[in-house]
Amino acid sequence: MTSMVRRTVVPAVAPFAMAAMRHRSRLADEALRELEEEQQEEKTPRPDIPAGWTLKHKAGESCFTLSKQYNDESLEVYCQLQVADPDIAERRRNGDDSSMEHFPFTLLVTRNGKTLDFSLTHVDGEMVIDGLAHFASPAVASDMSAEGMARKERMYQGPTFAELHDKLVDSVAAFLEERGVDDDLSAFVASYSYWMEQQEYENWLRCVADFAS
Amino acid sequence: MTSMVRRTVVPAVAPFAMAAMRHRSRLADEALRELEEEQQEEKTPRPDIPAGWTLKHKAGESCFTLSKQYNDESLEVYCQLQVADPDIAERRRNGDDSSMEHFPFTLLVTRNGKTLDFSLTHVDGEMVIDGLAHFASPAVASDMSAEGMARKERMYQGPTFAELHDKLVDSVAAFLEERGVDDDLSAFVASYSYWMEQQEYENWLRCVADFAS
Amino acid sequence: MTSMVRRTVVPAVAPFAMAAMRHRSRLADEALRELEEEQQEEKTPRPDIPAGWTLKHKAGESCFTLSKQYNDESLEVYCQLQVADPDIAERRRNGDDSSMEHFPFTLLVTRNGKTLDFSLTHVDGEMVIDGLAHFASPAVASDMSAEGMARKERMYQGPTFAELHDKLVDSVAAFLEERGVDDDLSAFVASYSYWMEQQEYENWLRCVADFAS
Repeated sequence: MTSMVRRTVVPAVAPFAMAAMRHRSRLADEALRELEEEQQEEKTPRPDIPAGWTLKHKAGESCFTLSKQYNDESLEVYCQLQVADPDIAERRRNGDDSSMEHFPFTLLVTRNGKTLDFSLTHVDGEMVIDGLAHFASPAVASDMSAEGMARKERMYQGPTFAELHDKLVDSVAAFLEERGVDDDLSAFVASYSYWMEQQEYENWLRCVADFAS
Repeated sequence: MTSMVRRTVVPAVAPFAMAAMRHRSRLADEALRELEEEQQEEKTPRPDIPAGWTLKHKAGESCFTLSKQYNDESLEVYCQLQVADPDIAERRRNGDDSSMEHFPFTLLVTRNGKTLDFSLTHVDGEMVIDGLAHFASPAVASDMSAEGMARKERMYQGPTFAELHDKLVDSVAAFLEERGVDDDLSAFVASYSYWMEQQEYENWLRCVADFAS
Repeated sequence: MTSMVRRTVVPAVAPFAMAAMRHRSRLADEALRELEEEQQEEKTPRPDIPAGWTLKHKAGESCFTLSKQYNDESLEVYCQLQVADPDIAERRRNGDDSSMEHFPFTLLVTRNGKTLDFSLTHVDGEMVIDGLAHFASPAVASDMSAEGMARKERMYQGPTFAELHDKLVDSVAAFLEERGVDDDLSAFVASYSYWMEQQEYENWLRCVADFAS
């Protein structure tokens, strides 16, 4: 439909618009060619969602959530795809391994009207604990609006984990492990991020081709 | 008027306030001296706006927009002056060329109720394409409020350009070039940023002198 | 009370929940042990608030303000504890001194319906001036909401201080010194940040123990 509309418009603006159409077609063509290539490659299957968790992702969004109930606690994992820093992407492309991929995510554990907010990262096959904040209100903790994020930033974010005693860090890790939040879950977060990114990338190719055709 | 008010206030608080006045004057004096110096230097003329584009900038703001119509598309360039990182500014002052100036800007191309959102940078005389997102709603794409920006960050931002096939990147560059978004336009963005910064700097000197007098 | 509720719940989910309880206790135990240790260490006394200033800090928040009146000006210092970058914290732990601690803070000086907004940092025993913006509206300058911050970022932020003439920078420093905003005040900001972080850390240990027990 879209390209019909364009064709009706073209004759009135003649040679310039014709050149434009060729270029427009070029972007559309390349996007569709790339889409075809992607679709011909062997598909990585959708990673299996770990038992007990419910996953939510809206098409077009760069985030997904995992949630489950654990006794009287509700757990929610929130993962936002990272936009690659152009310089780091460039270095990685040139084989610089020091700029390893990081998959940061958040876990909210809510119980009795309070929330623990864990900052976690999957890196180099392992789950690393970056931080743990305590919020006296689950509504405050789960507010992902800009104002909500600003409000949370003004609250105490918890200690720097790299400076904590090992015993305390280990007990936090044990707390998480017991709830199924461990290297396996964070490996899932990473592989689901890859898989989701691929879906979003293919959809992006379709949208760009459609826009430019 | 302002300084009249201050003078009436001074006698009541005597010697301390007198000392204060001298210092206040010192900042005002230096700001005015600097303003005079700036104004005596040969003026860089206002860069010519590229044909077909309309530029908007409100005094006091650190951003400007360029817009034009291209067939049935509306194009809007949005450029926000960068606040120099103190460390990078220091290094640049000491002649470290590795910290080259970057002029990031955004281009929104809207057509048929959809928007392509290009992340571009002028660096080292060239326009670099950093990213391209697709939004199904122009209202969402152009919402520069904090909530709007947070909403956009939760959407898919498009692939990492450094990882794309050259042919696809080239066709994006051709798409932009055809719309007059090329090295020349990004060089204009950089030179206008310089010029605008100079105007804002002189106005800042006036405001600071006025405040401190 | 909390643990009573949990005990009533446990029997229904038997052995798994029992194991869970042991782990939960481990985090609670470690948090309480750490709290005890912290409380047995010699206490750093609360740093004395510099004469003339009023300090405000709400428990649970990671920011504090200092305010005072100076002639017809109102001064407000705003300091937000920084969340340590995990990599920098790691390096610091390993004795890398190059990643010195920074304590950035803001000073708003309001007079006659205008505001100067100073960006300051305490680093290596000294107060460094990073920036100075002028706002024609105190309401805009002091708006710390996400929308308010976004609005301020779109305004001119003032020149890069590292590029200014020394005389102008010196006169800004003199302006600040005269108002008691100097190395001593910024040293207070740093030491109060430490002290406050310790209070918040101990409170965090209590909250985490309470949550996990």
